[in-house]
Amino acid sequence: MASSIPKDAMEFPESDREFLEPHLPPKDGSTPREDSPFVTLTFATSLDSSLALSPGAPTAISGPQSKAMTHYLRSRHDGILIGVGTAVADDPSLNCRLIGVGGYGGEGLAGQPRPIVIDPTARWDFTGDSKLFKLCREGRGRPPWIITAVKEPPAEKVSLLQEYGGRYVTVNFTTSDTGRNRLDWDDLLLTLKNSGLNSVMIEGGSQVINTLLEPEYLPKISMVILTIAPTWLGQGGVVVSPARRLDEGGNAIPAARLADAKWYPFGEDVVLCGRVQI
Amino acid sequence: MASSIPKDAMEFPESDREFLEPHLPPKDGSTPREDSPFVTLTFATSLDSSLALSPGAPTAISGPQSKAMTHYLRSRHDGILIGVGTAVADDPSLNCRLIGVGGYGGEGLAGQPRPIVIDPTARWDFTGDSKLFKLCREGRGRPPWIITAVKEPPAEKVSLLQEYGGRYVTVNFTTSDTGRNRLDWDDLLLTLKNSGLNSVMIEGGSQVINTLLEPEYLPKISMVILTIAPTWLGQGGVVVSPARRLDEGGNAIPAARLADAKWYPFGEDVVLCGRVQI
Repeated sequence: MASSIPKDAMEFPESDREFLEPHLPPKDGSTPREDSPFVTLTFATSLDSSLALSPGAPTAISGPQSKAMTHYLRSRHDGILIGVGTAVADDPSLNCRLIGVGGYGGEGLAGQPRPIVIDPTARWDFTGDSKLFKLCREGRGRPPWIITAVKEPPAEKVSLLQEYGGRYVTVNFTTSDTGRNRLDWDDLLLTLKNSGLNSVMIEGGSQVINTLLEPEYLPKISMVILTIAPTWLGQGGVVVSPARRLDEGGNAIPAARLADAKWYPFGEDVVLCGRVQI
Repeated sequence: MASSIPKDAMEFPESDREFLEPHLPPKDGSTPREDSPFVTLTFATSLDSSLALSPGAPTAISGPQSKAMTHYLRSRHDGILIGVGTAVADDPSLNCRLIGVGGYGGEGLAGQPRPIVIDPTARWDFTGDSKLFKLCREGRGRPPWIITAVKEPPAEKVSLLQEYGGRYVTVNFTTSDTGRNRLDWDDLLLTLKNSGLNSVMIEGGSQVINTLLEPEYLPKISMVILTIAPTWLGQGGVVVSPARRLDEGGNAIPAARLADAKWYPFGEDVVLCGRVQI
C-alpha cells in the first residue's frame, strides 16, 4: 500500500538529476569490483572545509536544493554509512525523504537505503526513541546495521535491534600503535556486498571521511560528490582534511586529488563530482 | 617603447574575461567609497582551505587557467597587497605577466600594479636581489610601497627603496591585548586612495585574509574572488579560516558568508565571486 506523503518530504526535479547521473552507481546494480559495493563519499562543507560549527551541532551549511540532492542520492544507494561519532552527536534519521520512495508516497520501503553505523566498541546508546527507530515504526526507514569489533554486544541492544529487524555485524578491526581501533574496510565492504548492498554512500563524520582520504583507503572510493557552500564557519569547526602525506624524502605533498573533476553550480552552492586519483 | 615579450608571459583569452567583468573594479576608476579603493580579496585554496602545504612552501594548487586569471586580475587593479609573512616566505614577484602590459609587450609600466607589503615592524630584509627589485630593473614591475608602523625604518632599507622609486608608508597601528600589532585598515585604505590607487587586490597570506574575514573588517571588502582546486593538501597546511564568531549568547555562528555568490567552473578548478554579507 502506498503511504501518505509527510510534510517534510522533498522534491528533486528531473532537470537537476541529469548532471549527477554519470557519477552515480549504475542502475543495473553492477559494481566496479566483485568484492565491494560502489562507494560514494559525499558530504557538504563550508569554504573552510567544516562540516559543522562543533561536534554535535548540526549546522545548516548548504541550501535547500543541495539538501534535496542528498535525499535523491540516498534514493540511489542501497546503504548510507556514518561513524558512531555522528550517530551519537546528531541522532540522525538516515532515511530518504524524497517524494515517491517508501514512506513518502511509495510502496513499502522501496528506495529507502540501509542505515549503517560504524561503532567499533558498540558504544552508541540508541533506544526506541532514537530517530532511526521512530522512522522504522512509521514505515519511513529501514532498521540499521551496526558495524562493530565487539564479539558479543550488550544483550539488551541486540534485542532492541532485532525487534526492529536490524543487527550488529562484527567485522575485523585492527588496533593502531596509538591504541585507536581502525576498521578493516576490505572486510566491511566485502561483508556489505555479500549482504546484497551494491552501492553505499558514506556521509561522515569527519573522522570517517578523513580516514578514507588517506592513501591506503583512497582506492576504495568509487566517486566523491561534495557540496560547498559560500560561507566560512570559522576556526574550531569539524574539519575535513586528511592526515598530512609525505613523499619518500619526507616532504609534504598534497594528500589527495580528484580526477575528472566536474563542478556544477547549484543554487548558492557548488557540487563537485570526481573520482580520486590513485 | 614597447618591450619584448618574455617567455613567462601569459595569455588570458577574451572569452574567459566576460564572467569576471561584473566582479571587477569599474574601468572608469570610480570607487564604492570616497575613503577607500575598490578592495578585492582574492586567493586560491585547496578543498581543505589551504593556501600552501606549509609556510614558505609556495604550492601549485590551481591550474594554468586560474594562474593566468590571477595575472589578468592584477592588470585590472592599481595595487596588489600582501602581508610581510608572504613577502619573507615566498620572495614574490607581485607583477603582472599578462601579454600586453608594460614589460610584457606593452608600453612603460602600463597595467603593472603597485606592490604593497604590510610590514608593521619593518622586518622584511629585502635586498637588490629580491625578485621585486629585479623586475623593477628589467622594467617589468613597479617598486613597492611598504606599509609600516615604524616611524623611522632602517636608513639602508629606506635608501634601497628610494633608489628604485619605492617607499615606506607609515600608517597607524593599534596593539592588541596579546601584543600583536594590528593595522588600522581605515587609515591604510584612505592613504592608498589619497595616493591615487582606486583599486587594490589583496592576495594573502593567510593572516591578512583571516583578519579581513573578521566581522570588523568585512565591510572593507568590495569583492571576493576565490579559486578552489579539486585537491586536499592535508593537515598542517596554511589555512584560510577566520576566527570563531560568537553571537550575543556566546554560541558559535558562521564567521562570514558571501552574498550573490556566483560559481564558475574553470578548467579543473572553480572560481567563486561574491560580495560579503554584512
